[in-house]
Amino acid sequence: MKKHYSEQLAGVRELVLRMGGLVEQMTRRVVQSLVQRNLNLLAEVRAMENQVNQLHIEIDEACLELIALRQPAAADLRFIAAAMKINTDMERIGDQAINITEHAESLLAVPPLKPLIDIPRMAEIAQEMLKASLDAFVNGDDEAAFETILRDDTVDQLKDQVFRELLTYMMADPSTIPRALDLILVSRNIERIADHATNICEDVIFMVKGKDVRHQGPLA
Amino acid sequence: MKKHYSEQLAGVRELVLRMGGLVEQMTRRVVQSLVQRNLNLLAEVRAMENQVNQLHIEIDEACLELIALRQPAAADLRFIAAAMKINTDMERIGDQAINITEHAESLLAVPPLKPLIDIPRMAEIAQEMLKASLDAFVNGDDEAAFETILRDDTVDQLKDQVFRELLTYMMADPSTIPRALDLILVSRNIERIADHATNICEDVIFMVKGKDVRHQGPLA
Repeated sequence: MKKHYSEQLAGVRELVLRMGGLVEQMTRRVVQSLVQRNLNLLAEVRAMENQVNQLHIEIDEACLELIALRQPAAADLRFIAAAMKINTDMERIGDQAINITEHAESLLAVPPLKPLIDIPRMAEIAQEMLKASLDAFVNGDDEAAFETILRDDTVDQLKDQVFRELLTYMMADPSTIPRALDLILVSRNIERIADHATNICEDVIFMVKGKDVRHQGPLA
Repeated sequence: MKKHYSEQLAGVRELVLRMGGLVEQMTRRVVQSLVQRNLNLLAEVRAMENQVNQLHIEIDEACLELIALRQPAAADLRFIAAAMKINTDMERIGDQAINITEHAESLLAVPPLKPLIDIPRMAEIAQEMLKASLDAFVNGDDEAAFETILRDDTVDQLKDQVFRELLTYMMADPSTIPRALDLILVSRNIERIADHATNICEDVIFMVKGKDVRHQGPLA
């Protein structure tokens, strides 16, 4: 039996949330692996990527089917377009988590450079942003999306701080260079996760307000 | 007067090409600025970003309007969905070019580290991939898209090579660290431009074949 239209829409929402939960968990786990110096967690992260890739395809298919068969207009169309865009961003968050697993592997093979500076803090904010962006999507809450976007500046500042600190290490002791480079690249990956969460928030605002808030410079 | 449907589709295609041309030029110019050590080119790149951001919004709007008013099915819907996805990737290529301008600014403020190793070569391939991906979109040529995807491996190899060479410099002479880091990050930005070109090719294949080729592991 063909599902009802509203069920199909709810189905898309559910798939997005499932995928969001997975990439959130990938992000959390990969940073845990660094903090706890636990290589086993990396296998978990990699296993989750397969599910994410599957959902990535499934969500696009469900959205295109909805458009083709149901010819949604106005608000529903914006919801579906947002779901497809959010889908892309979530998949790329998964890619970033996988990139971090590679750096984690090098980092866990050698003695730690030092505590991880502000990297865990950066990751915490990026995860909170991701969670908040998906909540905003489900609740159609453009104000929450707006608030979340503002947090991206903090992540960028922490990234710059991490960079400066690691630069000091490297200049003082070249033997730290390979580890410091891995950590710099991890901090860039986390920054990009926060950027994707920001993109998701922009899509939510578009979905709710029917208005494009991208490229407006400082949010007004 | 309302435009005909086929004109509206052609309009979307034209907007995509215009935006593609711009981000191609941004990429070319920003690498030229590094090679020629010419700061003036950076202003050009930044000026182009405004146009790219404008087109980014325009393309999404044109696509959503087409879906809402014309209820396209099958091939046309895949074309429009592909245009929206390609739009996102092109905008992010523009972002990468802007990221490179920042590194270029630091790099041009100090004496050159050395010739730029394989960075110009990497950029050349990434640009060719981008151009080929957009040609494949316009021509609906999935085979060309497929061939283009294969080139991404070369870019990744060059990126690893650039990384290893710069690491050697840094270890040998810590005074090179800041410049080497800028170059490493530039090479990552170029790598990501090639990744976006790859995404565009995957969207073209989906558009032509109605088949999702993403996440298939080594292309078969």
